[in-house]
Amino acid sequence: MTVHRFDPTTYHRTFGSHDGVLTLASRDGLLTTTVDASGRDERGERVTDPGNPLTGPFLIDGAEPGDTLVVRVRSVRPNRPTGFSSAALAPVTVDPAYVWELERTDRRIDWQVDMHSCTARPSKPIIGLEGFQVPVEPMLGCIGVAPEAGQAISTATSGRHGGNMDYRGIRAGVTLRFPVLVPGALLFVGDVHAAQGAGELTGTGIEISADIELEVGLERGVRPEDRVVWPRGETDTVLFTMGNARPLDQAAQHATTEMVRWLRGRYGLSIEAASVLIGQACDYDLGNMFDPAYTMVCVLEKRYLPTAT
Amino acid sequence: MTVHRFDPTTYHRTFGSHDGVLTLASRDGLLTTTVDASGRDERGERVTDPGNPLTGPFLIDGAEPGDTLVVRVRSVRPNRPTGFSSAALAPVTVDPAYVWELERTDRRIDWQVDMHSCTARPSKPIIGLEGFQVPVEPMLGCIGVAPEAGQAISTATSGRHGGNMDYRGIRAGVTLRFPVLVPGALLFVGDVHAAQGAGELTGTGIEISADIELEVGLERGVRPEDRVVWPRGETDTVLFTMGNARPLDQAAQHATTEMVRWLRGRYGLSIEAASVLIGQACDYDLGNMFDPAYTMVCVLEKRYLPTAT
Amino acid sequence: MTVHRFDPTTYHRTFGSHDGVLTLASRDGLLTTTVDASGRDERGERVTDPGNPLTGPFLIDGAEPGDTLVVRVRSVRPNRPTGFSSAALAPVTVDPAYVWELERTDRRIDWQVDMHSCTARPSKPIIGLEGFQVPVEPMLGCIGVAPEAGQAISTATSGRHGGNMDYRGIRAGVTLRFPVLVPGALLFVGDVHAAQGAGELTGTGIEISADIELEVGLERGVRPEDRVVWPRGETDTVLFTMGNARPLDQAAQHATTEMVRWLRGRYGLSIEAASVLIGQACDYDLGNMFDPAYTMVCVLEKRYLPTAT
Amino acid sequence: MTVHRFDPTTYHRTFGSHDGVLTLASRDGLLTTTVDASGRDERGERVTDPGNPLTGPFLIDGAEPGDTLVVRVRSVRPNRPTGFSSAALAPVTVDPAYVWELERTDRRIDWQVDMHSCTARPSKPIIGLEGFQVPVEPMLGCIGVAPEAGQAISTATSGRHGGNMDYRGIRAGVTLRFPVLVPGALLFVGDVHAAQGAGELTGTGIEISADIELEVGLERGVRPEDRVVWPRGETDTVLFTMGNARPLDQAAQHATTEMVRWLRGRYGLSIEAASVLIGQACDYDLGNMFDPAYTMVCVLEKRYLPTAT
Repeated sequence: MTVHRFDPTTYHRTFGSHDGVLTLASRDGLLTTTVDASGRDERGERVTDPGNPLTGPFLIDGAEPGDTLVVRVRSVRPNRPTGFSSAALAPVTVDPAYVWELERTDRRIDWQVDMHSCTARPSKPIIGLEGFQVPVEPMLGCIGVAPEAGQAISTATSGRHGGNMDYRGIRAGVTLRFPVLVPGALLFVGDVHAAQGAGELTGTGIEISADIELEVGLERGVRPEDRVVWPRGETDTVLFTMGNARPLDQAAQHATTEMVRWLRGRYGLSIEAASVLIGQACDYDLGNMFDPAYTMVCVLEKRYLPTAT
Repeated sequence: MTVHRFDPTTYHRTFGSHDGVLTLASRDGLLTTTVDASGRDERGERVTDPGNPLTGPFLIDGAEPGDTLVVRVRSVRPNRPTGFSSAALAPVTVDPAYVWELERTDRRIDWQVDMHSCTARPSKPIIGLEGFQVPVEPMLGCIGVAPEAGQAISTATSGRHGGNMDYRGIRAGVTLRFPVLVPGALLFVGDVHAAQGAGELTGTGIEISADIELEVGLERGVRPEDRVVWPRGETDTVLFTMGNARPLDQAAQHATTEMVRWLRGRYGLSIEAASVLIGQACDYDLGNMFDPAYTMVCVLEKRYLPTAT
Repeated sequence: MTVHRFDPTTYHRTFGSHDGVLTLASRDGLLTTTVDASGRDERGERVTDPGNPLTGPFLIDGAEPGDTLVVRVRSVRPNRPTGFSSAALAPVTVDPAYVWELERTDRRIDWQVDMHSCTARPSKPIIGLEGFQVPVEPMLGCIGVAPEAGQAISTATSGRHGGNMDYRGIRAGVTLRFPVLVPGALLFVGDVHAAQGAGELTGTGIEISADIELEVGLERGVRPEDRVVWPRGETDTVLFTMGNARPLDQAAQHATTEMVRWLRGRYGLSIEAASVLIGQACDYDLGNMFDPAYTMVCVLEKRYLPTAT
Repeated sequence: MTVHRFDPTTYHRTFGSHDGVLTLASRDGLLTTTVDASGRDERGERVTDPGNPLTGPFLIDGAEPGDTLVVRVRSVRPNRPTGFSSAALAPVTVDPAYVWELERTDRRIDWQVDMHSCTARPSKPIIGLEGFQVPVEPMLGCIGVAPEAGQAISTATSGRHGGNMDYRGIRAGVTLRFPVLVPGALLFVGDVHAAQGAGELTGTGIEISADIELEVGLERGVRPEDRVVWPRGETDTVLFTMGNARPLDQAAQHATTEMVRWLRGRYGLSIEAASVLIGQACDYDLGNMFDPAYTMVCVLEKRYLPTAT
């Protein structure tokens, strides 16, 4: 396995068929860095425009539409001691008549992110919430590939190609699978959060720059029934599928449908078996309900899977 | 504390202002039984019509609109060795064009529910899923109070009064709070599931009859800012709020709004403090996305709450 | 044909199995009155509690579940010269972040309703909108039958039984069809608006009391394929179907599905023929997007229907 | 006024910052052609790939972000005698459990489009619907500008930039206003339908190639309160605003919010006056509920507008 070190100098705010910055072969490793959502790097300096600027795209050698891109997330490590978040719940997250109770503010909360104690706390105590701290659980807010047909999709949103899913489960230890939609796949990554509540209800996690380590893989000759339609994830203990859409209902439909496909394709389950398994054993996570497309995640513990497979 | 034993002979399929079957005082305990969603009791005999027939209503002595009804769930214990579920995902749970892949069937799966090993498994192995079993984690599919203004709301659905929320978190150890909407509150309970996947995507959990033990409480003289608008729950480790509506977005808005109210009223947090707390530390559970109203649950771990309160 | 005159003394705020106030035979006419949404009558006096109090229920002789109740609306005529509306768009009708721009007010607009000129105008000119008047096009905000299974559904909302649909098309000249869900059908009517914009975006039309004239009919022995599932309407020129739900998408799905059923059952069209007809010739009206359930209406001009039928 | 004649040789399937094919000055006219959604021209020959290939983009001389692009649609005229549509309602348009009743087919209906009689009828009679014909009312399924920030958005969907709105109101006689989001605005146009039902429920209108005539205008120095946020339209008798999103509720919120902005900015109305006007006098049209983003249109008759302005 070759491990590549890549230091980005340009960033993209769309998932599109931009020039590859580096070619990776299947099983190659990658060490690189990401700037925060506002375009600031490990020194806190703005090196590019704000709006989820991403590192990449990385061209996957030999990838063709119909293949599956595998991305193993080995490490996501904040590389500076401070992050920021918004101070206000987004209007869309509360009852319409409760919006009047919310503050109309762009105020930011700065956070001390301590990688030794693995905790983050507001730099300036919040009145009434003194002592509040959260565990640092770094996640990739954005990861995905270039969409098909010449589209360039904003890194503010998400779709079948992945994107700004803001799901806490995209962290070290997870293996993701994306559909290859253009030759070379073109992998983008960025928008790291040191921590985040489910749903990203203030429109931000604790936004931070990071060092990341990935390993890529390519699955070719994929049978139609094994094709990845919506992004898939896997850890030692769970399978998950990510649907991106509005309303949440549609996002959940995408995720559930993808889980059924996965169980049928890879595990050979009948519709009935897949239905019973999902019906009595699955769980759902909320990725985000802030971005233009929301994200719902269908999660299934591996202990429930057919043992013989 | 008085513990009442109540053996139901009638059941209701609406949450409404029906005659109370028993009057409970605040801090009273209640031992009773529930039939399954199809109206069958611990002997498997149909004793009432199907459609989530509920036990109750229990009249809470002195309860008036504006008060809070507290229900501590002490025990939910299936009282027979077999349950049933549907064999098919509901059409609303998958992508519209994937409905054609689903079976159009009313077939039932029967389950062996073993309270010794605390596991449930299909009575007849499902091909491809031999050996499949799930832990028994009994939950109350339906619990709630009579709605205001003479309404009688089907036990198929849910609302501010609670109802058929089908949330796995409503189980032994949880303390629930409901708004009192009519004099006497009128508590109903039933529709126990021995286990269920999140979302109740086949329209059923493992439906079963049960023995249950509750303790009720009444909070009077509630300040306006402490009023329960949507049902609330609490365990040793978490607070949660339940929103019921379609689409899931609106259910989540109700749940989030109720959590903000709770944090402001009981913990005295400012909007900013509540926003930061929810934004970086909350989680969401999916109750159901099958019933006429869906259920989303906002969950907050108590370890994040202000320590001085 | 017998025409009954009924002067109400009691009103209901739920569609439920209340005692019938009068029995009507198929083809009977009915002259009665309705109070406004706030419970005020033709003298402007509050004769009952606010919240869409309705006149009825009228028992339809011989009606049984599975039958179809036909209601011909002969006349809806405001019986006093003043109505009222809200002065504010409801928060749910605008973008969440635009709610801050809206006024948080309960202010009412009073309207002069002139049945001679058939126009309504604000009693006190609205600054910037001097001279504003709208045609009086009286409509029934609420009409429907008792729901099944002992439910009593608030007159604030709607469903398969009809209810508070707030659709401008429910006016003199229309013939409505409802499913009979309980013995006797139990018809309720009220909540007249002298005029209303589509969607009822301020949560009110021009609310007023009225004299109304209806004719009822009963269709028995209905074939399964001709059963009314969602309320249907018909005028000299159009057929329409009304779906009630949230989000609007689901309401539209109900309406479209009901139109397909109608075209298949009554006109014998194949799925393909119904699809082509709806796809290239139907229209949609927005009933309301304010009430707990929204209303979308699928409208088809009769000139497109098969001529031989 | 200069009228340009442009014969396209290339087409685009994204709204993006592609090279301008022709520069137009404010008040210039444009005569051009569009191919149908499948890439076929006036001879029925496939000259480009299917998927709503569009003519353009036309660069508007001097247009800068913050300006308003005005497009007057002078003429939309099918330029061949045949069109096509789908034979099947899309699954998303009916109740989830009714999808099983729909045909799973890609069958096409061919249409004779007669510009003399101004009618379209299926080339081969549809059984049970013999004699069915619809008036030819040609409309532009797609029209819009390049989005900001380097995005390239598929011509299958829509947004603030316009796009595939599939609204029947975009036809000869309408004047549209779009936000200029990139220098030169970059206007795209195509996907003409000879006719279409509201909602485009089969996923197609009567798809056809066309000759079109437009006139463009540019409004510069636009005050912030007059900025176009969502596309606006105007005819001799109405104003309308188009919101694009899912669910329909959000699309309607966009449209309503834009109408409020318009009434406040151009007509100087207070929030109260705009609320009363919209609440009692507006109408809503359904653009489409098939594409990835749905379209709802808020329509206001000009006769209700303040007379002095």
